[in-house]
Amino acid sequence: MTQFGFELLATDGAARLGRVDTAHGPMDTPAFMPVGTAGTVKAMMPESVAATGAQTILGNTYHLMLRPGAERVGQLGGLHEFMQWKGPILTDSGGFQVMSLAKLRKMTEEGVAFQSHIDGSKHLLTPERSMRIQHLLDADITMAFDECTPFPATPEQAAQSMHLSMRWAKRSKEAFVSRPGYGLFGIVQGGIYHDLRAESACALRDIGFDGYAIGGLAVGEGQDLMFQTLDFTAPMLPAERPRYLMGVGKPSDIIGAVLRGVDMFDCVMPTRSGRTAQGFTRRGTVNLRNARHQDDARPLDADCACPACRQYSRAYLHHLIRSEEILGPMLLTWHNIQFYQDVMKGLRGAIAAGRVHDFADDFLATQAQGDIEPI
Amino acid sequence: MTQFGFELLATDGAARLGRVDTAHGPMDTPAFMPVGTAGTVKAMMPESVAATGAQTILGNTYHLMLRPGAERVGQLGGLHEFMQWKGPILTDSGGFQVMSLAKLRKMTEEGVAFQSHIDGSKHLLTPERSMRIQHLLDADITMAFDECTPFPATPEQAAQSMHLSMRWAKRSKEAFVSRPGYGLFGIVQGGIYHDLRAESACALRDIGFDGYAIGGLAVGEGQDLMFQTLDFTAPMLPAERPRYLMGVGKPSDIIGAVLRGVDMFDCVMPTRSGRTAQGFTRRGTVNLRNARHQDDARPLDADCACPACRQYSRAYLHHLIRSEEILGPMLLTWHNIQFYQDVMKGLRGAIAAGRVHDFADDFLATQAQGDIEPI
Repeated sequence: MTQFGFELLATDGAARLGRVDTAHGPMDTPAFMPVGTAGTVKAMMPESVAATGAQTILGNTYHLMLRPGAERVGQLGGLHEFMQWKGPILTDSGGFQVMSLAKLRKMTEEGVAFQSHIDGSKHLLTPERSMRIQHLLDADITMAFDECTPFPATPEQAAQSMHLSMRWAKRSKEAFVSRPGYGLFGIVQGGIYHDLRAESACALRDIGFDGYAIGGLAVGEGQDLMFQTLDFTAPMLPAERPRYLMGVGKPSDIIGAVLRGVDMFDCVMPTRSGRTAQGFTRRGTVNLRNARHQDDARPLDADCACPACRQYSRAYLHHLIRSEEILGPMLLTWHNIQFYQDVMKGLRGAIAAGRVHDFADDFLATQAQGDIEPI
Repeated sequence: MTQFGFELLATDGAARLGRVDTAHGPMDTPAFMPVGTAGTVKAMMPESVAATGAQTILGNTYHLMLRPGAERVGQLGGLHEFMQWKGPILTDSGGFQVMSLAKLRKMTEEGVAFQSHIDGSKHLLTPERSMRIQHLLDADITMAFDECTPFPATPEQAAQSMHLSMRWAKRSKEAFVSRPGYGLFGIVQGGIYHDLRAESACALRDIGFDGYAIGGLAVGEGQDLMFQTLDFTAPMLPAERPRYLMGVGKPSDIIGAVLRGVDMFDCVMPTRSGRTAQGFTRRGTVNLRNARHQDDARPLDADCACPACRQYSRAYLHHLIRSEEILGPMLLTWHNIQFYQDVMKGLRGAIAAGRVHDFADDFLATQAQGDIEPI
């Protein structure tokens, strides 16, 4: 039986090279985990996601509990079997999305009562229910149930929210059914406040988790404040456990966070951008809807090995988007996931070689040149 | 240099086993050609289309001339290069779609003047322009420009329409630029009238084409009238040339037409159905949107080797459709194309074995059992 664990293989400054072992295989870190909200990484076959080098994907507890239902997924063999993803799956706790998507929410000490945004059905999400759902989904990495503190928040608001999350973290730990190869992560809250983050980190370390997430960032505070918060938060987390920055982000966000000691990331950006005609490249994002691509025989990114870049012209991608053809999102999503995985692979190689700052400088300088040149 | 040609390999009653050779490879007949309207078989990667056994796909002159434009596709290396389809491509003439989609149409002896349904731009489609467009697209099989006679039509209307199509067929032949491996097909019109079909077939044989299509069917006349029309029309066509029934159809339509001597088919049905939750099976079509599939762990079709059936449950396909996930159309389209190709492969094997009528009887008996059983 695989034990859930984290091996720290190398460091380069604060940046870390590591490996997370789970019941469904390893994840090399720093890692970017594509988001598969409702049991599918949108517009991708799972084997295509794996072909990009992605090892772990994310599932969303809130979406899956409402449709098709956690008990149903459990009956059908769990989320891996249901969606045919062979590698590790991390599920969020539902705490964030219930506050952003559900109707008629009522938060109490017990949890959050709400109505489904899909059919108005009534539900109660508590730490215990969240653990049960993630167990039914068979998540390799379960996230503690928390409240994502909004931004901006006063110190008092942030403290109150964080304290609730810490009580819920303790209940999550107590309700989590431990199995070999399966891990539970706590989530540090506390907004942008050093003392609150420190208090939260200590509270979680006292409870004891298999990994530690940093929550409540990438919610509008901007990159500078996010990096400042990481500067003091990441060092508070146990070095021997993986660190996960939730919902982040742009390539430059990820690189900055890796330089500050973060190991794991997820974000809808590459997939969502793929459905809105945005392609990521080393020189910044490209809007393939723009008419200047209509006669351009070059690939989107000559350095990329994904099918969109290996086989097709920018003119064709532009045509697909203008014609609203499904193949447009399919190809651009694949490219964007590939781009993100290539960035992570580059980061891992650079940390191993002790030159992660050079890698970051080069990457950010190229990105700053802006959009690729017109023909 | 490959010469365009047709080899008749075996017959079984009126049913024919053959092979069409083109500049971009062979097509085994009876063949079903998936429709790639705007330079993509909707929701499919071209390598996935090829993996189903499909050898030839269709492109639509009307759509491609308007967007991205035939000259542009030509500049970019032709439609094969543009959309990365390695096999043969057949393009229609634009005659059918200009009458069903364009705005402010005006038909004269010269051709059809119209405005684009996309941006209102003005165009003139003539036999000469249609030949030029299909040449720019680099179609292996070019269709003569014709008017698809509506149904119902009086004998007088059908005759007038057919005569115009025959004059346009002659102009198409004169304008077609002959190249090794590339062929031009004439289109028999005449509605449901025996004498008009005979007159049209003779007129086309006099002009001389590389293949002969039967147009003006599957336009509302029903299967019985379609089969009656095929009964007298197919024998009028030269045995040594391929025969193509345009826009057909349901599996039972195709099987009935193969029994009557038709070699080639195209239809949006498998692809369009794949985007509207309909899956084809040996026991009829299945509506995956239906709630009775929500707990069904079985594959859509246990006999099918496509990814949708090999890997996923009906419950998962149902979930994708209910959640409006792009992967739903992706998987169902793949399955439907695979199903159609498997039917054609079955027909070819049965003709070779001299048991095509048994194959047809078995297939139609199973289809008649209706939708697959609920669990």
